[in-house]
Amino acid sequence: MSLLQTEIESQPSILQRLLDLARPLAIEAAARIRAFDPHYVVIAARGSSDNAARYAQYLFGAVNRLPVALATPSLFTLYHQPPALRDALVIGISQSGQSPDIVAVLEEARRQHALTLAVTNDPASPLGQAAELVFPLFAGEERAIAATKTYTSQLLALAMLSTALHPSPERWSELQGIPTAVARAIEQAEPACAAAAAFRDEQRLVVIGRGFNYATAFEIALKLKELCALVAEPYSSADFRHGPIAMVEPGFPVVAIAVSGAVLDDIVSLLDDLERRRAALILISDRPELLARAQLPFQLPSGVPEWLSPIVGVIPGQLFASALARARGLDPDRPRGLQKITRTR
Amino acid sequence: MSLLQTEIESQPSILQRLLDLARPLAIEAAARIRAFDPHYVVIAARGSSDNAARYAQYLFGAVNRLPVALATPSLFTLYHQPPALRDALVIGISQSGQSPDIVAVLEEARRQHALTLAVTNDPASPLGQAAELVFPLFAGEERAIAATKTYTSQLLALAMLSTALHPSPERWSELQGIPTAVARAIEQAEPACAAAAAFRDEQRLVVIGRGFNYATAFEIALKLKELCALVAEPYSSADFRHGPIAMVEPGFPVVAIAVSGAVLDDIVSLLDDLERRRAALILISDRPELLARAQLPFQLPSGVPEWLSPIVGVIPGQLFASALARARGLDPDRPRGLQKITRTR
Repeated sequence: MSLLQTEIESQPSILQRLLDLARPLAIEAAARIRAFDPHYVVIAARGSSDNAARYAQYLFGAVNRLPVALATPSLFTLYHQPPALRDALVIGISQSGQSPDIVAVLEEARRQHALTLAVTNDPASPLGQAAELVFPLFAGEERAIAATKTYTSQLLALAMLSTALHPSPERWSELQGIPTAVARAIEQAEPACAAAAAFRDEQRLVVIGRGFNYATAFEIALKLKELCALVAEPYSSADFRHGPIAMVEPGFPVVAIAVSGAVLDDIVSLLDDLERRRAALILISDRPELLARAQLPFQLPSGVPEWLSPIVGVIPGQLFASALARARGLDPDRPRGLQKITRTR
Repeated sequence: MSLLQTEIESQPSILQRLLDLARPLAIEAAARIRAFDPHYVVIAARGSSDNAARYAQYLFGAVNRLPVALATPSLFTLYHQPPALRDALVIGISQSGQSPDIVAVLEEARRQHALTLAVTNDPASPLGQAAELVFPLFAGEERAIAATKTYTSQLLALAMLSTALHPSPERWSELQGIPTAVARAIEQAEPACAAAAAFRDEQRLVVIGRGFNYATAFEIALKLKELCALVAEPYSSADFRHGPIAMVEPGFPVVAIAVSGAVLDDIVSLLDDLERRRAALILISDRPELLARAQLPFQLPSGVPEWLSPIVGVIPGQLFASALARARGLDPDRPRGLQKITRTR
């Protein structure tokens, strides 16, 4: 079995460990954040971690009413003209904690007396050292180059932090259900993975999500690019209508995340349009009536609340990318020309 | 001549008119903004206007030290859980001013006593009516479905607003040079456009920019998707290294914006890597030594300061997309399945 597959399958136990170990840390960090009373949040991250930041935009916005900006690191590093971070909570997210541009944002934020927090798998890393508060992921070393377990751990860490900021017994209890739901998503993806080879010769596809699962679309697209060497572009269903839908011709493959919740109607209305254009649908959904419309249906367990659905919804995407890589004769542990730690400025 | 080509070529005079008419409006809006003293900016936009918002992230950050967040409209419309917009300047950018989700963000922001500003070609539109301050574009009716003159007008309007916020005689004088530089970029694109048919059969490509020209990469990619029905994905040079570079194989077409300025070294170092992978380079640059390395070189006029280079740098991309559409047998005035006004919620 590939390192990647092993790490994908380890996620239920990794997430359970994070839930068990990190609750007091989340509560402590939340107390510091409440005392600081940030007006908004800035998040600096790259790659998969940047997709975790996209999740945080919806999570902190909807649950904690905090607006979230994604940082523009080049303003800090290449232009040397960082914005003024008055009253901001500045979060750096990085598996390794090594990327110099992300560290530079946190260092400048701290210089400006913003409140800084690092979410990282390595608390001793430069990022961990730069930040005032550190939220470790406890995910163990990630050996596959493509991030999987550290991505879902980042989402869960953010969800725990959000819950600690506006505590609710219901939300804490919903968090407890995640490891089991992830395990079921892994099991249930098997039949669709076995049929993934049908898409072996595709050169390009798009991935659609919205709201909380906008992040999921980005992360699945990134896995497909890294592992399968194809062009996979993520979109919100709204942005896709503002121009890009023009590229859909019969047979064009579209991956869509369509889970129960506030944005489902919008996704379904786009699916109707895509069916009229005879796109090939790869659906990730907890809704049997939608899955029946897909060429490749990935069934998600039911009962996962929308705000946590990205942790579960990304799983079929990880497994699809892994299966499709093998079908394309690529080694999922050796993506072309990538290294585990990318250091950008 | 297509409507699109006519509107592309009208840009020097349209931009000149905006410079002539809107300076007092920019100064007046800036006075209101200074009095409000925003801690940060939130921008709501879709499609090309969202790419103008990306430009504003670097512009307001570098010149005005204001952090900029791109809004997440679904939090306002579908989730009904808008973030708290304390001390925020909230800007809606929309050619038509019609998209209900963008209007909803401005309405909620005004309800919360944030300062609201609409940048629109139609001041009488719902967006114009929702905002406290309105910055009209004076671009005349845009008849082609793909936005060109209203995009560069939005960039120029934002640049004028930024300059009015932190006045500098040097920056006002640099703004005056833009219409002529745009006219030269149009002329100089002709030889490369004539050779664009070499890329007629491509199904996918990527577009690279960074810093101020991150927006340019997004906008050129959008034109290519809308007009040429191919998959064109935009990236910053930094994000591209964090995974997606794995998809580059020999002959893979890469459009890059490589203009003089603070991020040029970073772009050039990525170009070195792309050459080793034998990518096919389509370069937009003011640097002859770089253009010599391209399969398809688009020469930009020299002397344009980096902070204004996106207004000039997008021109070859508009013309390339128009030429490539014709080479692919597509009508640039009738992108597949698009309408001029897209109303999303």
